[in-house]
Amino acid sequence: MFTKQIIYLSLPIAVVCAFLAVQHGYSESSQERIVRIAELEIYPDQVAAYKAALKEEIETSIRVEPGVLTLYAVSVKGHPNQVRLFESYSNQAAYQSHLQTAHFRKYKVQTQNMVKSLTLIETDPILLGSKSK
Amino acid sequence: MFTKQIIYLSLPIAVVCAFLAVQHGYSESSQERIVRIAELEIYPDQVAAYKAALKEEIETSIRVEPGVLTLYAVSVKGHPNQVRLFESYSNQAAYQSHLQTAHFRKYKVQTQNMVKSLTLIETDPILLGSKSK
Repeated sequence: MFTKQIIYLSLPIAVVCAFLAVQHGYSESSQERIVRIAELEIYPDQVAAYKAALKEEIETSIRVEPGVLTLYAVSVKGHPNQVRLFESYSNQAAYQSHLQTAHFRKYKVQTQNMVKSLTLIETDPILLGSKSK
Repeated sequence: MFTKQIIYLSLPIAVVCAFLAVQHGYSESSQERIVRIAELEIYPDQVAAYKAALKEEIETSIRVEPGVLTLYAVSVKGHPNQVRLFESYSNQAAYQSHLQTAHFRKYKVQTQNMVKSLTLIETDPILLGSKSK
Protein backbone atom coordinates (compact mmCIF):
# COMPACT_ATOMS: atom_id res chain seq x y z
CA MET A 1 0.00 0.00 0.00
CA PHE A 2 2.83 2.38 0.97
CA THR A 3 4.72 1.43 -2.21
CA LYS A 4 1.64 2.19 -4.26
CA GLN A 5 1.38 5.62 -2.66
CA ILE A 6 4.99 6.33 -3.59
CA ILE A 7 4.23 5.34 -7.19
CA TYR A 8 1.13 7.55 -7.25
CA LEU A 9 3.11 10.44 -5.79
CA SER A 10 6.05 10.01 -8.15
CA LEU A 11 3.97 10.57 -11.28
CA PRO A 12 3.02 14.22 -10.62
CA ILE A 13 6.56 14.88 -9.36
CA ALA A 14 7.97 13.47 -12.61
CA VAL A 15 5.59 15.67 -14.61
CA VAL A 16 6.67 18.77 -12.68
CA CYS A 17 10.36 17.86 -13.18
CA ALA A 18 9.83 17.36 -16.92
CA PHE A 19 8.04 20.72 -17.08
CA LEU A 20 10.88 22.46 -15.27
CA ALA A 21 13.43 20.77 -17.56
CA VAL A 22 11.59 22.05 -20.63
CA GLN A 23 11.37 25.52 -19.10
CA HIS A 24 15.09 25.45 -18.36
CA GLY A 25 15.75 24.36 -21.94
CA TYR A 26 13.70 27.28 -23.22
CA SER A 27 15.61 29.69 -21.06
CA GLU A 28 18.92 28.32 -22.38
CA SER A 29 17.69 28.64 -25.94
CA SER A 30 16.84 32.33 -25.43
CA GLN A 31 20.41 32.77 -24.17
CA GLU A 32 21.58 31.89 -27.69
CA ARG A 33 19.93 35.04 -28.94
CA ILE A 34 22.29 37.53 -30.55
CA VAL A 35 21.56 41.16 -29.71
CA ARG A 36 23.54 44.00 -31.25
CA ILE A 37 23.27 47.74 -31.17
CA ALA A 38 24.51 49.83 -34.09
CA GLU A 39 25.14 53.57 -33.83
CA LEU A 40 25.34 55.29 -37.20
CA GLU A 41 26.00 58.82 -38.29
CA ILE A 42 24.53 59.57 -41.71
CA TYR A 43 25.64 62.44 -43.96
CA PRO A 44 22.84 65.02 -43.41
CA ASP A 45 21.98 65.35 -47.11
CA GLN A 46 21.63 61.56 -47.37
CA VAL A 47 19.20 61.00 -44.49
CA ALA A 48 16.06 60.53 -46.62
CA ALA A 49 17.78 58.14 -49.03
CA TYR A 50 19.37 56.23 -46.16
CA LYS A 51 16.05 55.82 -44.34
CA ALA A 52 14.37 54.51 -47.51
CA ALA A 53 17.11 51.90 -48.03
CA LEU A 54 17.06 50.94 -44.35
CA LYS A 55 13.27 50.51 -44.27
CA GLU A 56 13.38 48.25 -47.31
CA GLU A 57 16.15 46.16 -45.75
CA ILE A 58 14.27 45.82 -42.43
CA GLU A 59 10.94 44.93 -44.05
CA THR A 60 12.53 42.26 -46.24
CA SER A 61 14.64 40.75 -43.45
CA ILE A 62 11.70 40.46 -41.06
CA ARG A 63 9.49 38.98 -43.79
CA VAL A 64 11.82 36.39 -45.31
CA GLU A 65 14.34 35.45 -42.59
CA PRO A 66 12.95 33.24 -39.80
CA GLY A 67 15.94 33.99 -37.54
CA VAL A 68 15.68 37.79 -37.71
CA LEU A 69 13.52 38.58 -34.67
CA THR A 70 13.68 42.38 -34.35
CA LEU A 71 15.24 45.21 -36.31
CA TYR A 72 14.31 48.40 -34.52
CA ALA A 73 15.51 51.61 -36.13
CA VAL A 74 15.23 55.02 -34.49
CA SER A 75 16.92 58.38 -34.81
CA VAL A 76 17.96 60.55 -31.89
CA LYS A 77 15.30 63.25 -31.39
CA GLY A 78 16.46 66.50 -32.97
CA HIS A 79 19.32 64.71 -34.76
CA PRO A 80 17.76 62.79 -37.66
CA ASN A 81 21.20 61.82 -38.98
CA GLN A 82 22.08 59.95 -35.77
CA VAL A 83 20.55 56.51 -36.18
CA ARG A 84 20.41 53.69 -33.64
CA LEU A 85 19.57 50.11 -34.54
CA PHE A 86 18.58 47.45 -32.04
CA GLU A 87 18.94 44.07 -33.75
CA SER A 88 18.11 40.62 -32.43
CA TYR A 89 18.64 37.25 -34.10
CA SER A 90 17.60 33.82 -32.84
CA ASN A 91 21.20 32.55 -32.80
CA GLN A 92 24.68 33.02 -34.29
CA ALA A 93 23.82 30.99 -37.42
CA ALA A 94 20.79 33.21 -38.13
CA TYR A 95 22.97 36.30 -37.80
CA GLN A 96 25.68 34.94 -40.11
CA SER A 97 23.02 33.90 -42.63
CA HIS A 98 21.51 37.41 -42.53
CA LEU A 99 24.87 38.94 -43.52
CA GLN A 100 24.94 36.78 -46.66
CA THR A 101 21.44 37.60 -47.96
CA ALA A 102 20.96 39.50 -51.21
CA HIS A 103 18.83 42.18 -49.51
CA PHE A 104 21.41 42.88 -46.80
CA ARG A 105 24.23 43.07 -49.34
CA LYS A 106 22.13 45.39 -51.52
CA TYR A 107 21.52 47.66 -48.48
CA LYS A 108 25.25 47.74 -47.68
CA VAL A 109 26.17 48.71 -51.23
CA GLN A 110 23.35 51.27 -51.52
CA THR A 111 24.28 52.98 -48.26
CA GLN A 112 28.07 52.76 -48.27
CA ASN A 113 28.49 56.42 -49.26
CA MET A 114 25.66 57.65 -47.03
CA VAL A 115 27.16 56.43 -43.74
CA LYS A 116 29.76 58.71 -42.16
CA SER A 117 30.47 56.40 -39.22
CA LEU A 118 29.25 53.09 -37.84
CA THR A 119 29.84 51.71 -34.35
CA LEU A 120 28.76 48.15 -33.62
CA ILE A 121 28.16 47.18 -29.99
CA GLU A 122 27.99 43.49 -29.12
CA THR A 123 25.82 42.80 -26.09
CA ASP A 124 24.78 40.20 -23.55
CA PRO A 125 21.00 40.12 -23.05
CA ILE A 126 19.85 40.71 -19.45
CA LEU A 127 16.12 40.44 -20.12
CA LEU A 128 14.24 41.09 -23.36
CA GLY A 129 10.77 41.94 -22.13
CA SER A 130 8.09 42.18 -24.78
CA LYS A 131 4.29 42.01 -24.94
CA SER A 132 4.45 39.52 -27.77
CA LYS A 133 6.64 36.91 -26.08
CA MET B 1 -25.53 48.60 -68.93
CA PHE B 2 -22.34 50.68 -68.88
CA THR B 3 -23.52 52.48 -65.72
CA LYS B 4 -24.12 49.13 -64.05
CA GLN B 5 -20.56 48.05 -64.88
CA ILE B 6 -19.25 51.20 -63.25
CA ILE B 7 -21.29 50.45 -60.13
CA TYR B 8 -20.01 46.84 -60.03
CA LEU B 9 -16.44 48.04 -60.49
CA SER B 10 -16.70 50.73 -57.86
CA LEU B 11 -17.50 48.29 -55.04
CA PRO B 12 -14.14 46.44 -55.01
CA ILE B 13 -12.33 49.77 -55.48
CA ALA B 14 -14.16 51.18 -52.45
CA VAL B 15 -13.20 48.10 -50.43
CA VAL B 16 -9.54 48.50 -51.40
CA CYS B 17 -9.64 52.22 -50.53
CA ALA B 18 -11.19 51.46 -47.14
CA PHE B 19 -8.51 48.83 -46.50
CA LEU B 20 -5.74 51.29 -47.40
CA ALA B 21 -7.32 53.94 -45.15
CA VAL B 22 -7.35 51.52 -42.22
CA GLN B 23 -3.74 50.56 -42.94
CA HIS B 24 -2.77 54.23 -43.04
CA GLY B 25 -4.56 54.75 -39.74
CA TYR B 26 -2.58 51.91 -38.19
CA SER B 27 0.63 53.41 -39.44
CA GLU B 28 -0.28 56.80 -37.94
CA SER B 29 -1.12 55.18 -34.61
CA SER B 30 2.28 53.49 -34.49
CA GLN B 31 3.79 56.97 -34.93
CA GLU B 32 2.43 57.78 -31.45
CA ARG B 33 4.74 55.17 -30.04
CA ILE B 34 7.32 56.46 -27.57
CA VAL B 35 10.77 54.91 -27.93
CA ARG B 36 13.59 55.74 -25.54
CA ILE B 37 17.09 54.45 -25.05
CA ALA B 38 18.74 54.56 -21.64
CA GLU B 39 22.48 54.17 -21.14
CA LEU B 40 23.43 53.31 -17.57
CA GLU B 41 26.70 52.78 -15.79
CA ILE B 42 26.31 50.61 -12.69
CA TYR B 43 28.80 50.49 -9.82
CA PRO B 44 30.67 47.22 -10.52
CA ASP B 45 29.99 45.69 -7.10
CA GLN B 46 26.26 46.38 -7.55
CA VAL B 47 25.77 44.70 -10.95
CA ALA B 48 24.10 41.52 -9.64
CA ALA B 49 21.73 43.42 -7.33
CA TYR B 50 20.94 45.93 -10.07
CA LYS B 51 20.14 43.21 -12.61
CA ALA B 52 17.81 41.46 -10.13
CA ALA B 53 15.89 44.70 -9.48
CA LEU B 54 15.77 45.52 -13.19
CA LYS B 55 14.47 42.08 -14.16
CA GLU B 56 11.69 42.31 -11.58
CA GLU B 57 10.72 45.76 -12.84
CA ILE B 58 10.67 44.63 -16.48
CA GLU B 59 8.67 41.47 -15.79
CA THR B 60 6.05 43.35 -13.78
CA SER B 61 5.73 46.23 -16.26
CA ILE B 62 5.27 43.93 -19.26
CA ARG B 63 2.76 41.80 -17.35
CA VAL B 64 0.53 44.48 -15.80
CA GLU B 65 0.84 47.57 -18.03
CA PRO B 66 -0.98 47.31 -21.37
CA GLY B 67 0.94 50.30 -22.78
CA VAL B 68 4.44 48.97 -22.05
CA LEU B 69 5.32 47.22 -25.31
CA THR B 70 9.01 46.35 -24.96
CA LEU B 71 11.65 46.72 -22.27
CA TYR B 72 14.83 45.24 -23.66
CA ALA B 73 17.81 45.23 -21.33
CA VAL B 74 21.32 44.26 -22.39
CA SER B 75 24.84 44.87 -21.17
CA VAL B 76 27.78 45.73 -23.40
CA LYS B 77 29.80 42.54 -24.01
CA GLY B 78 32.81 42.46 -21.70
CA HIS B 79 31.43 45.38 -19.65
CA PRO B 80 28.60 43.96 -17.52
CA ASN B 81 28.23 47.26 -15.67
CA GLN B 82 27.37 49.16 -18.88
CA VAL B 83 23.65 48.61 -19.38
CA ARG B 84 21.50 49.69 -22.32
CA LEU B 85 17.72 49.74 -22.24
CA PHE B 86 15.50 49.96 -25.29
CA GLU B 87 12.01 50.95 -24.13
CA SER B 88 8.83 51.36 -26.14
CA TYR B 89 5.40 52.51 -24.98
CA SER B 90 2.20 52.68 -26.99
CA ASN B 91 1.87 56.45 -26.47
CA GLN B 92 2.83 59.36 -24.21
CA ALA B 93 0.04 58.61 -21.71
CA ALA B 94 1.25 55.02 -21.32
CA TYR B 95 4.76 56.27 -20.65
CA GLN B 96 3.62 58.83 -18.07
CA SER B 97 1.45 56.20 -16.39
CA HIS B 98 4.44 53.81 -16.22
CA LEU B 99 6.48 56.41 -14.31
CA GLN B 100 3.76 56.56 -11.62
CA THR B 101 3.43 52.81 -10.99
CA ALA B 102 4.41 51.29 -7.64
CA HIS B 103 6.79 48.79 -9.29
CA PHE B 104 8.67 51.49 -11.23
CA ARG B 105 8.98 53.70 -8.12
CA LYS B 106 10.20 50.70 -6.11
CA TYR B 107 12.85 49.99 -8.78
CA LYS B 108 14.00 53.64 -8.74
CA VAL B 109 14.38 53.65 -4.95
CA GLN B 110 16.05 50.22 -4.87
CA THR B 111 18.62 51.14 -7.52
CA GLN B 112 19.30 54.80 -6.73
CA ASN B 113 22.65 54.00 -5.07
CA MET B 114 23.62 51.36 -7.65
CA VAL B 115 23.54 53.65 -10.70
CA LYS B 116 26.68 55.73 -11.28
CA SER B 117 25.30 57.52 -14.34
CA LEU B 118 22.17 57.51 -16.47
CA THR B 119 21.76 59.03 -19.94
CA LEU B 120 18.28 59.13 -21.46
CA ILE B 121 18.01 59.42 -25.23
CA GLU B 122 14.66 60.44 -26.71
CA THR B 123 14.14 59.07 -30.21
CA ASP B 124 11.97 59.23 -33.31
CA PRO B 125 11.09 55.76 -34.61
CA ILE B 126 12.13 55.11 -38.22
CA LEU B 127 10.83 51.54 -38.43
CA LEU B 128 10.30 49.05 -35.62
CA GLY B 129 10.53 45.73 -37.43
CA SER B 130 9.54 42.68 -35.40
CA LYS B 131 8.44 39.13 -36.12
CA SER B 132 5.52 39.45 -33.76
CA LYS B 133 3.90 42.53 -35.31
